[in-house]
Amino acid sequence: MVAARVAIPGLGAAPQEGTSMRDIFDAELAQLGEDLVAMAARVERAITDAGVALLTADLPRAESVIMDDLGIDAMERDLDERCILLLAQQQPVATDLRVVVSALRMSATLERMGDLARHIAQVARGRYPGHAIPDPLASTFTEMHDAAVRVARRTTTLLGTRDLAIAAAVEQDDDTLDELHENTFTVLLGGGWTGSIQETVDVTLLGRYYERFGDHGVSIAKRVTYLVTGAMASAEPAAKG
Amino acid sequence: MVAARVAIPGLGAAPQEGTSMRDIFDAELAQLGEDLVAMAARVERAITDAGVALLTADLPRAESVIMDDLGIDAMERDLDERCILLLAQQQPVATDLRVVVSALRMSATLERMGDLARHIAQVARGRYPGHAIPDPLASTFTEMHDAAVRVARRTTTLLGTRDLAIAAAVEQDDDTLDELHENTFTVLLGGGWTGSIQETVDVTLLGRYYERFGDHGVSIAKRVTYLVTGAMASAEPAAKG
Repeated sequence: MVAARVAIPGLGAAPQEGTSMRDIFDAELAQLGEDLVAMAARVERAITDAGVALLTADLPRAESVIMDDLGIDAMERDLDERCILLLAQQQPVATDLRVVVSALRMSATLERMGDLARHIAQVARGRYPGHAIPDPLASTFTEMHDAAVRVARRTTTLLGTRDLAIAAAVEQDDDTLDELHENTFTVLLGGGWTGSIQETVDVTLLGRYYERFGDHGVSIAKRVTYLVTGAMASAEPAAKG
Repeated sequence: MVAARVAIPGLGAAPQEGTSMRDIFDAELAQLGEDLVAMAARVERAITDAGVALLTADLPRAESVIMDDLGIDAMERDLDERCILLLAQQQPVATDLRVVVSALRMSATLERMGDLARHIAQVARGRYPGHAIPDPLASTFTEMHDAAVRVARRTTTLLGTRDLAIAAAVEQDDDTLDELHENTFTVLLGGGWTGSIQETVDVTLLGRYYERFGDHGVSIAKRVTYLVTGAMASAEPAAKG
């Protein structure tokens, strides 16, 4: 197996004298973790900028989020290819294997969160110079933005620290997003709604995009919890679509 | 490595005299493929039943789709655990490794398609005894249902045959779903829409659910194409959220 355990180009350092293959593999796993944190931080920025663009009708900011999503997609492909290299060349087992497979899955979840940020930015761009969010729902979507940014920031920190208290906080943010999502329907269907059809459509889709951030954050929180405790409550949160 | 190449319980047959480890591994990969086809067939049934429940306000059928989604989620977890066992015990490389990693990803995509069928069934249940789809859009959603069922049926066949002509047909179905999704906005925003706010919300969400079936089908078509040709045009279709 030694032949299969040489360092992977770009993954960790080449073997030094006195450096065990285990040291090299640990370095590669650590690098994988750093890449996930970097991807999460980029998604966090996209979610923050998309919400600001939506709430302030900031066209250049919306455009930059839309452009940057290509970079997030590239990070996922790069990370996945390196996971496959790790599987092929290090052939990890047990916990090491689950760490690599989890990285594959979490990168896909982060990529979806980036897509949702892009969709929000696209709505902001489509309504510019107008505002997509009508006044009666401005405070609700400001709260949704704040909760989504918390989910993203906590996800980044969780991936870097594996502090399960943060995982629990992400689940609370998800509950908050679900409640705020319900609020949007209460406003739309409560009888007093006078918004246009376009506003109704936008609010319906934007509410769903924001609610999904919580589901994806919980999905990552569950995977990290699983890696730390070895117990998987349930593979995914009750998905909302 | 021989110790790591014993047959996995429930994955392929135990070694027979004259049976090589490669034979065993091939049997396990074949079993994995059969499991994916079985999962795709179950998702195809969910999509079919959800659409019939929606278009005919069939409450028992909607309830059965919602219940059966738990079984689809369980299939994904089982399939993923067996992929991880295969990686750990067979330590595949090259194409074999990509087949197993692709199975992990395609099971997640199929699980999402099952969720979307459940969401459609939940809307049908929520409006019962009424119909969620207003008359002006009945034909559009009938076409969306037909296209989504084609995507699901072709995905099942594609996973079983790896016939790339079917992959191309899935991409056409996705284009059809995108056009039909655009039609819903044309009807909603064209000036003649007199539906209720609830109907506007339902049509907006249902249109999105159906449009997503196409994206997921294309994602699987691209992965199968990659496995057959070794070339990945792009990791995912331009995601719509």
